[in-house]
Amino acid sequence: MAADISDFFQSAHPFDLAVWLNQLPVAQASGHLADIPLPRRAKVFAHLARDRQVDLAQALTPNDFAEMVAQMDADDRADLFNLLPRAAQHQLIHDLKQEDCENIRSLSAYPEGSAGAIMTTDYAVLEAGMTAAQAIDALRCMGPGRETIYRSYVLDGDRRLIGSVRLHELILADEATPISNFMDKALKTVTPTTDREDVAKMIAQYDLFAVPVIEADGRVVGIVTHDDATDAMQAEMTEDFQKISTVLPFTQSLRQAGIRVLYSKRIVWLALLIFGNLFSGAGIAYFEDMILAYVSLVFFLPLLIDSSGNAGSQSATLMVRALATGDVELKDWRDLILRELIVAAALGATMALVVFPVGALRGGPEIALTVGLTMFVVVIIGSLVGMSLPFLLSRLRLDPATASGPLVTTISDGMGVLIYFSIASVVLGL
Amino acid sequence: MAADISDFFQSAHPFDLAVWLNQLPVAQASGHLADIPLPRRAKVFAHLARDRQVDLAQALTPNDFAEMVAQMDADDRADLFNLLPRAAQHQLIHDLKQEDCENIRSLSAYPEGSAGAIMTTDYAVLEAGMTAAQAIDALRCMGPGRETIYRSYVLDGDRRLIGSVRLHELILADEATPISNFMDKALKTVTPTTDREDVAKMIAQYDLFAVPVIEADGRVVGIVTHDDATDAMQAEMTEDFQKISTVLPFTQSLRQAGIRVLYSKRIVWLALLIFGNLFSGAGIAYFEDMILAYVSLVFFLPLLIDSSGNAGSQSATLMVRALATGDVELKDWRDLILRELIVAAALGATMALVVFPVGALRGGPEIALTVGLTMFVVVIIGSLVGMSLPFLLSRLRLDPATASGPLVTTISDGMGVLIYFSIASVVLGL
Repeated sequence: MAADISDFFQSAHPFDLAVWLNQLPVAQASGHLADIPLPRRAKVFAHLARDRQVDLAQALTPNDFAEMVAQMDADDRADLFNLLPRAAQHQLIHDLKQEDCENIRSLSAYPEGSAGAIMTTDYAVLEAGMTAAQAIDALRCMGPGRETIYRSYVLDGDRRLIGSVRLHELILADEATPISNFMDKALKTVTPTTDREDVAKMIAQYDLFAVPVIEADGRVVGIVTHDDATDAMQAEMTEDFQKISTVLPFTQSLRQAGIRVLYSKRIVWLALLIFGNLFSGAGIAYFEDMILAYVSLVFFLPLLIDSSGNAGSQSATLMVRALATGDVELKDWRDLILRELIVAAALGATMALVVFPVGALRGGPEIALTVGLTMFVVVIIGSLVGMSLPFLLSRLRLDPATASGPLVTTISDGMGVLIYFSIASVVLGL
Repeated sequence: MAADISDFFQSAHPFDLAVWLNQLPVAQASGHLADIPLPRRAKVFAHLARDRQVDLAQALTPNDFAEMVAQMDADDRADLFNLLPRAAQHQLIHDLKQEDCENIRSLSAYPEGSAGAIMTTDYAVLEAGMTAAQAIDALRCMGPGRETIYRSYVLDGDRRLIGSVRLHELILADEATPISNFMDKALKTVTPTTDREDVAKMIAQYDLFAVPVIEADGRVVGIVTHDDATDAMQAEMTEDFQKISTVLPFTQSLRQAGIRVLYSKRIVWLALLIFGNLFSGAGIAYFEDMILAYVSLVFFLPLLIDSSGNAGSQSATLMVRALATGDVELKDWRDLILRELIVAAALGATMALVVFPVGALRGGPEIALTVGLTMFVVVIIGSLVGMSLPFLLSRLRLDPATASGPLVTTISDGMGVLIYFSIASVVLGL
């Protein structure tokens, strides 16, 4: 048994060890963590859940903790630093070497969600004057354990980026060739404040391994690697999922999120939408006499407003996603609105045909006509609202994902109630 | 002007050229494409939109097309092959070398969405008996242009995987050391039928560069690289977005999707949900006399059923996403249901407090009590339905993303109507 565990400790991937440690009580996890030798311990720690990292940071002795932090990747430890309580931050700064401290300070200063916040300062630097052989020797000396060695950056004396070289080019090149002869000069770069979503999109579109982060003056301050970009993309995607269901963004794991967090992230929009729905109620109140005369109109109310909301949710979600992936841009709005109108009319007509006989059975031909006509109109209105809202939000420089299904449903409900009773008053001659 | 274009042709990233060609008329795009020399032309082509690739495939002469296809990456050309009409497939098979044909045939045989369908057969193979220096020489000879050289796979005589070596380890190692001394033997692998989503998740979790695809007998048939896994993840994400808004999955670009595609993907669920909503209508019809006696009950109907649906959409979407990322698993259901109950009760209580005064103003204390109580109950019911449905679907081996906001809304609407009028009949003493 003990041999099994010790075997698992030595051979398992840090991610698997972290998954296991995530599930143990804190005291037990910190004991096991201490048994894992450095630098492996730092790797395992980096894979732990964020709240678990904070708990363990405080269960370890300050010295053990600082020793491990010194071995963590620059980007991971800056993230960790930002999560720590004030006192633990001070203690850590006190215990670390000055160089590591400055590195953490500079990385943790960039705003959440920016390229600066997900970049790392571990990357290989070469000088333009080197030959291929000298460059390989230089890389041997640095001996970075990370895969970032696969693309080295060529900087001038002022740390300004002038090119990049791929490891396999170095190996394939003749030993005496200066690297400036074959380095790649047309580089895609980002700035520290570039949105992490845009960085991830760039890396995916251009199939990059990493993208250098440069200041306005051309100095390199770090690189964002593909794996960190993928993590960032996943996080953005989770945020979009939360937003389109009217949940305010939160970064914790759903499994570990507390009751207070879930409540506070969900109540805001639920409460706001109540006020939207009160308009629908006011609309119904206005038509009170009609309802008393034709109570069967009420039977179809949930059906009609839901159908409008459903069609609108479809349009909104498709647009939100297409805007997020870059498939559709703001300027495409004009081209898409006509198509949406045609599709929505076809959907509305089909749905009108489905409800017409039900209306006839329950309320007679006039109710059937009212319900069918209303269905046709509200599906079109719902779709147009759903399609336009993400564009409108984007135009106002808000996140289009705020155009959630529930928001679209609430807006089209209010309009649906008015349309329904207006059509009814015409058809029924009230 | 002409010089500008020629400059753009030579220096632009293939992705940027593809974006530009995507927007031109087919005839013009095929003319420009022919001006780009091989193998660059093949790279540009691979970045084009899928439907654009098919159009251009038919605008080029069979010979030009085959020449270009021969230079494409194995995975990209297998995807293209699957998109071509039957006649074009036959023509292509006729024009290609036998080796390329067999490669396309074997790759395109794997089902859509599997590791086999996104893997490539371009990877570097080494033998266990080689020294570090011999391995570097072998890689120099293969001289693969792709970044897949960064991890080479060590196979035995039967092409069975026995280890892998990273390029930087080869460079850092002493020249005479056999690679079997330092190769990585504990490899993560997948099979050709592994779901591409699971492959992408594995690559992201273990920060892999690529993952080898092996048959049951241990033979390597290809590798999935991180960039293709990222693309697959993006596609899966788009599919999830479509599903949670009740749109049947489609892979085309939204900007280029035709009216018929959009109609057929959207109408199915919209029509199905009509039948669900008819139950709500039937429920209302059952309480016809109560509505005639207290018409103000109708004012609050959209508010109550929408609130229940909104809370349910939140829970469903959070769960769908957490199940997709692996944050939550099927077995966590028991642990999460109690927390959901507490959060939902808190949400319901808050919302009941908001609507109580409105109910009192519009309908008096009894209506206020009815509306408040109903709000409390339906928010809880909606949340529990929303949270449980993804688990239930997952348990039935269906995609949890089918638990869309609109489906949850329709289910909780029907229950909401019954709850509302049942509470009303008790409170109002009917």
